[in-house]
Amino acid sequence: MVTGVNLGKNSGNSEEKLRDLGERRAIEIITALLSKDNENIAIGPGDDCAAIELGEDYLLITTDMAVSKTHFPPGITPYQMGWFIVAINLSDLAAKGAEPLGVVVATGMPDDMDSIFLKDLISGMNSCATQFRTSIIGGDLKVHDQLTLTGTAFGKVRKTEFMPRRGARPADLVAVTGKLGGAGAAYYVIKNDLSVDDSILKGLFEPVPRIQEGRVLAKTGAVTSSMDISDGLADSLYQLAAINCVGFEIDFDKIPTSPGAQEIAKELDIPMEEFAVYFGGDYELLITLDPSNWEQVKNDLQNINGSISVIGRVTSETDLILIKENEKIQLENRGYEHFKWKA
Amino acid sequence: MVTGVNLGKNSGNSEEKLRDLGERRAIEIITALLSKDNENIAIGPGDDCAAIELGEDYLLITTDMAVSKTHFPPGITPYQMGWFIVAINLSDLAAKGAEPLGVVVATGMPDDMDSIFLKDLISGMNSCATQFRTSIIGGDLKVHDQLTLTGTAFGKVRKTEFMPRRGARPADLVAVTGKLGGAGAAYYVIKNDLSVDDSILKGLFEPVPRIQEGRVLAKTGAVTSSMDISDGLADSLYQLAAINCVGFEIDFDKIPTSPGAQEIAKELDIPMEEFAVYFGGDYELLITLDPSNWEQVKNDLQNINGSISVIGRVTSETDLILIKENEKIQLENRGYEHFKWKA
Repeated sequence: MVTGVNLGKNSGNSEEKLRDLGERRAIEIITALLSKDNENIAIGPGDDCAAIELGEDYLLITTDMAVSKTHFPPGITPYQMGWFIVAINLSDLAAKGAEPLGVVVATGMPDDMDSIFLKDLISGMNSCATQFRTSIIGGDLKVHDQLTLTGTAFGKVRKTEFMPRRGARPADLVAVTGKLGGAGAAYYVIKNDLSVDDSILKGLFEPVPRIQEGRVLAKTGAVTSSMDISDGLADSLYQLAAINCVGFEIDFDKIPTSPGAQEIAKELDIPMEEFAVYFGGDYELLITLDPSNWEQVKNDLQNINGSISVIGRVTSETDLILIKENEKIQLENRGYEHFKWKA
Repeated sequence: MVTGVNLGKNSGNSEEKLRDLGERRAIEIITALLSKDNENIAIGPGDDCAAIELGEDYLLITTDMAVSKTHFPPGITPYQMGWFIVAINLSDLAAKGAEPLGVVVATGMPDDMDSIFLKDLISGMNSCATQFRTSIIGGDLKVHDQLTLTGTAFGKVRKTEFMPRRGARPADLVAVTGKLGGAGAAYYVIKNDLSVDDSILKGLFEPVPRIQEGRVLAKTGAVTSSMDISDGLADSLYQLAAINCVGFEIDFDKIPTSPGAQEIAKELDIPMEEFAVYFGGDYELLITLDPSNWEQVKNDLQNINGSISVIGRVTSETDLILIKENEKIQLENRGYEHFKWKA
């Protein structure tokens, strides 16, 4: 789901091309044009999901499109493409603490693809949905020059358990689920044609949406803000900072890293922060919480064999700082540029 | 939304290409692979929308993808493309009697398109949504070689008012809202480079989802089955026939036709049934109902200035018959082949 982060009021030249505008400015333009007059909407563009009023619950909706040429790395199987489109949509629900209700997928496909490909693709979608206790309840199929998958996931969450992006307060702790850098490491492995264990690539090809972790976190009532870090940790922190008018101090050494990622970084002579801080594709949750709730949150996550790590704190100064080897450096506002794989 | 019509049990060669399989067989393959084990689902693939249990209501979801090369005729404006993707999704909600809650749209777009195009496109989406008392509550934006729009609409309807595809009974009347043939006439006007009034093209470029009519029909409680005829009247009747194990007798002369369509058919020497029976793109509702309820249904529709016409009846014999100039001929099982406009 795209988000309506406000990056300034300069509307620019109206004939500007999309590539010059950039994604965020384009989204700003879109958001400004949309009517806000819908009594059913609780939360519109600007969060991981939109939210509709549903009595004591919110109905949450999110949609994401993936295009074979730009979003699927070489070597990914049709099954994994199917898994991927469902997983990235479920991840947006997870970030809000929602329980999935169902997923629909619209598939655009070249007409010379065969039914084995189609079956593998659908099996991947189905496996991901059922693994997270939901299902593919409908879709659309169209002929398209390029394989194009649009997933839409919807779920529900008690209003009292919803984890918004807005809510982080100075002195809150910053924490992430799981381990970071796996997707970035896999990306560079493929780009450099390294030979590695399949488990390294699986993180990139078959991301695991943190549905269970999201539900547990939501139930603690301790989370002050939450989003997924699909666009990278740095990019996500900049988004949370803008929404909440706060800053962050992140301890680089506390960021949990994926198995094998350090070795790959070393072998390729790439600084580890490129994988764990400035690269996307790790579908983990980034949350903030009051320090007094940390023990409870950690224990609740451990009870489901989930992992969560404190990586820093929220500051009232609006700077974003990375502390590495006791040195404070400015966290760069570099986002995740969508993979540019060759066709 | 695609539908899981069962056209036979022959699974065919698994290496068959999509173009040889055809849309319906492909959908059959997809439907067979999907897990049905989701306690939240009331209605899965096989109707205009999927339905989720929501207390006394159903939450309805539908998704449709449109690709510039194949689904948008030459001359259509960016505003109209935006309108179109929202309208065709709302039409699926209308066919079930639902009230829209919101729409999300994922947009894939070449990066050399400019912000004027983007603004017009979004304005069209927004106008269609607001005209039907809902709004665009989120979306996604990706770079794509070809303009690709995936809309997902959701709405709700009382379970007691839901209008399913399954339910038509022999001796029921068959009725359609509005007038047919306008989209087909416009298609042939463009194809033959005829010069006509803009109002002829508007039916194709800016279809009107029958949300209000759908709500009124649902409230009558008289409708035994309902679907939209976006794929053409004949195609839709064949789908209803298969689901309900019934046949139809359709009086060709009772089919209400769009203004100007007759003249265009005459000028191009194309039989009028090509426009009104075998062509899609008229987003009208096709319903069946008990004859005893007809007067009430007609009056209720007239009260909102809606139009509805009886065009035939449901039969227990499973033949599909078209009565034209007192002659009974077999209705052909020809569907709406998606527009094949050149890029």
